[in-house]
Amino acid sequence: MATIWHNPAEFRQAVRQRRFTVPTAGQCPGYTQGNLAVLPHKYADAFLRFARLNLKSCPVIGMTEPGNSKVPELGDVDIKTDFPSYYVFHDGKRVAEVENLHDVWRDDLVGFVIGCSYSFEDALLDAGIPIRHIEQGTNVPMYITNIANGRAGDFAGNMVVSMRPMTPAQAIRAVQVTSRFPDVHGAPVHLGDPALIGISDIDAPDFGGRSLINSGEIPVFWACGVTPQEAIRSAGLPFAITHAPGHMVVTDIRNSHLAAF
Amino acid sequence: MATIWHNPAEFRQAVRQRRFTVPTAGQCPGYTQGNLAVLPHKYADAFLRFARLNLKSCPVIGMTEPGNSKVPELGDVDIKTDFPSYYVFHDGKRVAEVENLHDVWRDDLVGFVIGCSYSFEDALLDAGIPIRHIEQGTNVPMYITNIANGRAGDFAGNMVVSMRPMTPAQAIRAVQVTSRFPDVHGAPVHLGDPALIGISDIDAPDFGGRSLINSGEIPVFWACGVTPQEAIRSAGLPFAITHAPGHMVVTDIRNSHLAAF
Repeated sequence: MATIWHNPAEFRQAVRQRRFTVPTAGQCPGYTQGNLAVLPHKYADAFLRFARLNLKSCPVIGMTEPGNSKVPELGDVDIKTDFPSYYVFHDGKRVAEVENLHDVWRDDLVGFVIGCSYSFEDALLDAGIPIRHIEQGTNVPMYITNIANGRAGDFAGNMVVSMRPMTPAQAIRAVQVTSRFPDVHGAPVHLGDPALIGISDIDAPDFGGRSLINSGEIPVFWACGVTPQEAIRSAGLPFAITHAPGHMVVTDIRNSHLAAF
Repeated sequence: MATIWHNPAEFRQAVRQRRFTVPTAGQCPGYTQGNLAVLPHKYADAFLRFARLNLKSCPVIGMTEPGNSKVPELGDVDIKTDFPSYYVFHDGKRVAEVENLHDVWRDDLVGFVIGCSYSFEDALLDAGIPIRHIEQGTNVPMYITNIANGRAGDFAGNMVVSMRPMTPAQAIRAVQVTSRFPDVHGAPVHLGDPALIGISDIDAPDFGGRSLINSGEIPVFWACGVTPQEAIRSAGLPFAITHAPGHMVVTDIRNSHLAAF
């Protein structure tokens, strides 16, 4: 797996310079990672309402002024360059995967940075809970569920979840650990039988890689920041940008700063 | 099911006068219920060490002076009379079930009142989580597991757990709710597959009644105050008393007073 970086500013420099180009799971332990949604300004209000209605999957931790790509509340963060990979959508269809936003930027764009489940993974590791997809060096498995999102404007769709296999005792501890972090998806939304939330094949995630589930383990599911991405895609906006799944920005915010208690 | 009482002092009067004789689940919502272990003084030190080693199953919330049956820190509680039913053991064998301890009391006895999972049930109900055995009007199902207790002196044996069926989402909420109450068994110790903790037939509890598990529900298991009872029985003490499973004392302590946060 990739080298582990520890300093968010240095890590973002590495991303900008294309010295780091892969999924960001496990990078800069202790620092909050963020998902990205970039929309034309005219859709931003409805999207903020969507985020408020769907807090567990869409916790907004930073946003830009229209046309400005900086998010100073998260550090020296530039959404044009600080994610390793981006998707560009026209009319709800993905038309490109790009390394930065220099060529596609527009002055009417607003960027939203959304709390990410990767951020609580070092709290899980601190609690002695191993994380399969980090062990495997793969991207976290993600699934589109049958759990309907709250609707706002054209934004609706179903919740996307990330999954981590663990023993029942680890799952109980994981509920305790992640409950402390409501701004990075908080407690799990489901555990055990995947069919109960509309997942027909746990070994065939909609995004990310497969995580091996060992005997005696259960899958544990958290609301995922890909949810608003899917809502944006489904809304069929003329233009939108997201990060590529698993390819987050690392902010200067320490996860401990996000702990509710 | 039985009438619900609300005042602990009045409820204990009813128990003393044999106007209440059945399991105490759901009684005096908001007030802490306790299990009972009564031992000759010479075994009390080892039992306290056992309790310390096995905090989740054996949280001592009150104890008597040798020969004295009152527990003033829990209210006007008399362990001779305030449990609806008792078991008496000679040499580890149950020799009697009695209504009070008047005829079996001895001046060398020490009583321990131990936090009870019934006490967190009203917190679960407050959180909107239904409790099957209260709905059914049956005693909570309890099982002897393959989880070994820490040993102290002659006290050892395996953990006994109580079980409540719920949906996965309710189980996640239940972990959050019960984590706040470490003195009444705290978070679950297991959820899902009963075989993983040595339970071969979920429909055949070792104590209490069967709880129906509906489609889409999983069993959730908490450490149970019957654990020290079983340890006492297995230790084969010449003389010991416990409450009969499910027949607790209701104390004057509010559960909210036991909340850790």
